[in-house]
This record gives sequence, C-alpha cells and structure tokens, in this order.
Amino acid sequence: MTKTTAAITAVNGYVPEKVLSNHDLEKLVDTNDEWITSRTGIKERRMAADGEALSDFGVKIVEGILEKRGIGPEEIDMVIVGSITGDYRFPATANVICDKAGMKNAWGFDLSAACSGFLYSLDIGRVYIENGTHKKIIVIGADVMSSIINYKDRATCIIFGDGGGGVLLEPTEDGLGVQDSILRSDGAGREFLLQKIGGSVEPITKENAQTDGQYVFQEGRTVFKHAVKNMADVAAEIMEKNNLTADDVAWLAPHQANLRIIDATANRMGIDNSKIMINIEKFGNTTAGTIPLLLWEYEKQLNKGDNIILAAFGGGFTWGAIYIKWAY
Amino acid sequence: MTKTTAAITAVNGYVPEKVLSNHDLEKLVDTNDEWITSRTGIKERRMAADGEALSDFGVKIVEGILEKRGIGPEEIDMVIVGSITGDYRFPATANVICDKAGMKNAWGFDLSAACSGFLYSLDIGRVYIENGTHKKIIVIGADVMSSIINYKDRATCIIFGDGGGGVLLEPTEDGLGVQDSILRSDGAGREFLLQKIGGSVEPITKENAQTDGQYVFQEGRTVFKHAVKNMADVAAEIMEKNNLTADDVAWLAPHQANLRIIDATANRMGIDNSKIMINIEKFGNTTAGTIPLLLWEYEKQLNKGDNIILAAFGGGFTWGAIYIKWAY
Repeated sequence: MTKTTAAITAVNGYVPEKVLSNHDLEKLVDTNDEWITSRTGIKERRMAADGEALSDFGVKIVEGILEKRGIGPEEIDMVIVGSITGDYRFPATANVICDKAGMKNAWGFDLSAACSGFLYSLDIGRVYIENGTHKKIIVIGADVMSSIINYKDRATCIIFGDGGGGVLLEPTEDGLGVQDSILRSDGAGREFLLQKIGGSVEPITKENAQTDGQYVFQEGRTVFKHAVKNMADVAAEIMEKNNLTADDVAWLAPHQANLRIIDATANRMGIDNSKIMINIEKFGNTTAGTIPLLLWEYEKQLNKGDNIILAAFGGGFTWGAIYIKWAY
Repeated sequence: MTKTTAAITAVNGYVPEKVLSNHDLEKLVDTNDEWITSRTGIKERRMAADGEALSDFGVKIVEGILEKRGIGPEEIDMVIVGSITGDYRFPATANVICDKAGMKNAWGFDLSAACSGFLYSLDIGRVYIENGTHKKIIVIGADVMSSIINYKDRATCIIFGDGGGGVLLEPTEDGLGVQDSILRSDGAGREFLLQKIGGSVEPITKENAQTDGQYVFQEGRTVFKHAVKNMADVAAEIMEKNNLTADDVAWLAPHQANLRIIDATANRMGIDNSKIMINIEKFGNTTAGTIPLLLWEYEKQLNKGDNIILAAFGGGFTWGAIYIKWAY
C-alpha cells in the first residue's frame, strides 16, 4: 500500500502596507536603530491599517492560494488558523474567513499555540490528509500583533509585526510533503511570555483595562535562553531522527524572533548561512505568521524534492520542528 | 490490516461547587424560575470560585482521568483543550494544564470553536490516534462562562454555566471507539453569538472595556432557529451515513443549550426520550463542557459496544455529530 503524505501545493503570504521602521520607533520609545538591529536583526515591521483584523489577512492569503492553485473556494474541506489575535475570542476566525472567502464546504477552527501556531496547525492538517478523509486543507499562520502590543513598551514593540501566510495541503502518493514532525510544549514557561488579561484568570473589567495587562508581556532574557536551546535542539533532533546530514538539508525555515536564535539553530544543525530563510529585517516577529511568510518569499528558490526543516519556539512555551520535502 | 480506531478509555467531569439557581437569578435580573425552566429546561448552573480559571478545571479533570485509568501523567502524549475561556489568550491553557498536572511528555494547544469545541477537539484526537504516532491523548471540553457573562443581561446569564470534562483516547484494534464524524462551520452566523471585544476586530482599550462588549452577546432567536435545524440534520445524517436505525442508537449525547433543541434533535433521529442524555437542568450551557459532562454523568449506564451519537451546535456557527461505540 502506498503511503499518502500531505504535500504543500501552494503558498501565499500577506503583510499590510504600512511600514513601522526602527526610526519610527525612535520617536515612540527610548530606543535606536543600531540597538534594535544589533540585538534582533529587525529594521522594520508592518502594521495593520485601522479596522484591519485577522480575517482580512486571512481572506487575502486564501484568495492568493486559490488563484495560484486554480481552484474554487468550495473545493476546500477544512481551514485551520494558527493565531493568538483572531477577530474575536469566539467565534473562530477560521469560520469568518470561510464565510468571507466563499469556502462553503469547509469546517474550521482557530488554534492557540503562539509562535508555534503554524507548525502545530500544519501538523493537524497533515494527519487529516494522511487519514484520507480530507483532500484540500488550508493552514494559515498569521497575527495582528499590533492589536496587543503596547507602543510604549520598548521591550516588545520593537520585536513584533503584523502579517502571515498560509499553505494548501493535498494528498500525494509520491512521497513528497510532510515527512516528520516533533512538537513540544512546556507550560512552566507561561509566565515569561503572555497576555495577562482577557482570559479566565483575569477577565476584562473596567478596572484592569486601565493597567496595560491586555498587551504582550515578555521577560525577554528567559524566553531568549529557552528559545536558543529548544529550537536548536529540536531542529537537530529531527535531522538525526531522519538521518539527514547538513548536506541533505536544502533550507531551514526558522521562526523569526531574533537573528541570534536563528543563527544558533543553524549552527547546531551544522548548515551554512546561505541555507537559512530570513526576512526578519523586513517583518519582525509576526508570531504564527513567520514561517508561512518565509515559504512565500522563498517559494521561487525552492525545488521539488528539497528537504526543508521548519522550526519554531514561542509562548507557552511551545516549540517544534517539521521536516518537509518540497512538492513542486 | 486491522484498522486502528480511537477508543474513549476513561472520562471525567468537573463542576465548581457554587450553585447559581433560577431563584438566585431572580434577584439579579428581571426573570423568574418558571420562565427560565419552560423556555430552556435549566433550573441551576455552577459558577467558578473567585480566582478559579480554566486550567484549574482542567487539572481536576485530568487527575480524575489518570486515576480512573491507573496511569501516570508522563504517559500522556497530547492534550487538546476545546474552550473559549482559556486562562489567557496566550499561552495556551493546554500548556498550563500539562505543567500543573505533570504531563511532561505531552504537547498541546487550545482550540476555539465555541460550543462545538469538544467535538472538534475529539475529532483531532481521533485522527492522531488513527495515525498511530500518539497513544494516549486527553481531550478536554470546558468553559468558565462566568468569566465572560454579564449578570445584568437576562438573555445570556440564565443560560450559561461553568464546568466541563474530558476523555482519554487510546488506540484499539477491536473496532470500538470513534466510528465517524461530520463537522461543519458557517461563519455567516458570527454576528449572532460572539464576544465583541478582545480580538483584533476590537482590541481591548481603556474605553471599550466600559461598554460591556467583553461579555457574550447572543441574538437568541436566530441561534435557536439554526441550532434546531442544523443539530437535528447532522445527527440524522450521521445515522443515515452509517446505516443506523433508531433502534441501533443506544444514546444521544446532545449539546445542552436548550431542552427544545435537544428534543427536536431526538425527534428527527426518531429515538425515544429515554435514550437522551440530559443534565441541562443542573448545569445549563457550559459551552464546550456539555458533552463530556454528559458522558461523565451517564458513564455507569453505558455498556461496551453501545452506539452513541454526540451532537453539538454553537457560536461560529459551528456544528457537527460524532458516532462512537462505547469501549468499556
């Protein structure tokens, strides 16, 4: 029996037009371009237009995927949205995107796993495709980080940006697509990267909305330390598990949180810098959006059969790596 | 080749101690016991203690499952939490529960699909078990609705309650467990049941936190109309698809939103009232919590091989039915 695997058959990305540069941030908080660039690798990031929400990103991402693949919206079976900045806490933004984009035959939901949201969602899409019941699944990773960022907090506003992307998953019998995944969580990290209010621990009240608790809080040093170790470890582990040497790996698509975390991961894998997908300088950390944005930007450089390692680390803590063979 | 299916091998539920009766509500809003009972079937509901959040529910649910099954927390591979009232928007409450309950080897995430959250999560657990890579998955459906309910809004505060439950999924080769699922969404329903603020459409601000937009809004009549039709249709459809007659069905475990929706579903399926699991009178609508709470309460009456139809409808709109053969 031939094994069915889940191939990425189209990819699309979206970032809003508005650019927020390091120089713009110099006017908002006590920081400067040199400091931001040397610590993070980020030069600018994007910001949603007024009134632009996650489903607006999602609809543009989906429309591009459908157009590239030459299929209609009613052919999609399922939509998974990895995000922490959905239109609402409920209903799910997946439902909104399906309605706005005409995907009448799809069911869908939102998945919360912070910066690992795209990897986790991709893996769920994978198992449904392998399972055989679903034939066309769109997996989106995107975030409107500007909706939860305090532009007076220089520890976070310099890092995060808005944007995201998505992929279409379809079954294939030729061995391409998702080969393996290693996904991890450790809730002990919860206090170092979180949105304090708005959940059942601290529901929104008239009083706590005055406290800035609705914004992303990050204890940067601790998150950095765990990210460097765990993202590098899991990327090396998935290579070893699949007997991949550095030469076998065509590309690393790492979560774009910080250039130094990316470098540590590539070093640990033993791969050359020329194989690392990077766009952090333009978009910053778009949370669940980084990896599909990379695949979208590097799409033209990818060749059928390329071994690509996707790796992420983020809030939760959540982290993981997925090994794919590019399918087109 | 024997097919691996996903069997429910343990179930547990949890509701907080504090009872909010219809008589208690008479003191808060312009309503009365007779009106609530005749329109919804609800007599009382539970409310979380001060400071009790979703992960506190989750830990109690998990501990009971582990104890019943006689296994340690480190044996669990994955935890899926269907909920709209997680501890935080991020990190995921699944991560928090794993940490608090010692499930060191599990990864997990939260899934947002409102009242269908448990069914959707159960189906994801199913595909991972069928896929063979995961052996012990805990699927939780639970909500702390009191964290997003306005106790001055008589349209919603009479309906919703706090609580939830969970199941352990394990692979089996004996044909028991999850047999089939039909899951649907329609985002056209988004405006009739939602939490308006707190997402990227309307991020929390000092100003809008004064507007009550953080509470559940429901246009009850429209939701009721869609629920009656869609929950009944999908329950009948899954019977037909699996050649089940009314006699073949041992139990219906319907989402507990309103006794009249439940009756309409049972009528459409042609099954006797004695086969309907009901506890709405005690717990109200616990959103993602209703179905696992039913399985927990009716566990002793279930027999190995019983055909059970789970059915739900809720915000999104999202709905669906899952057909299981009880495994113990």
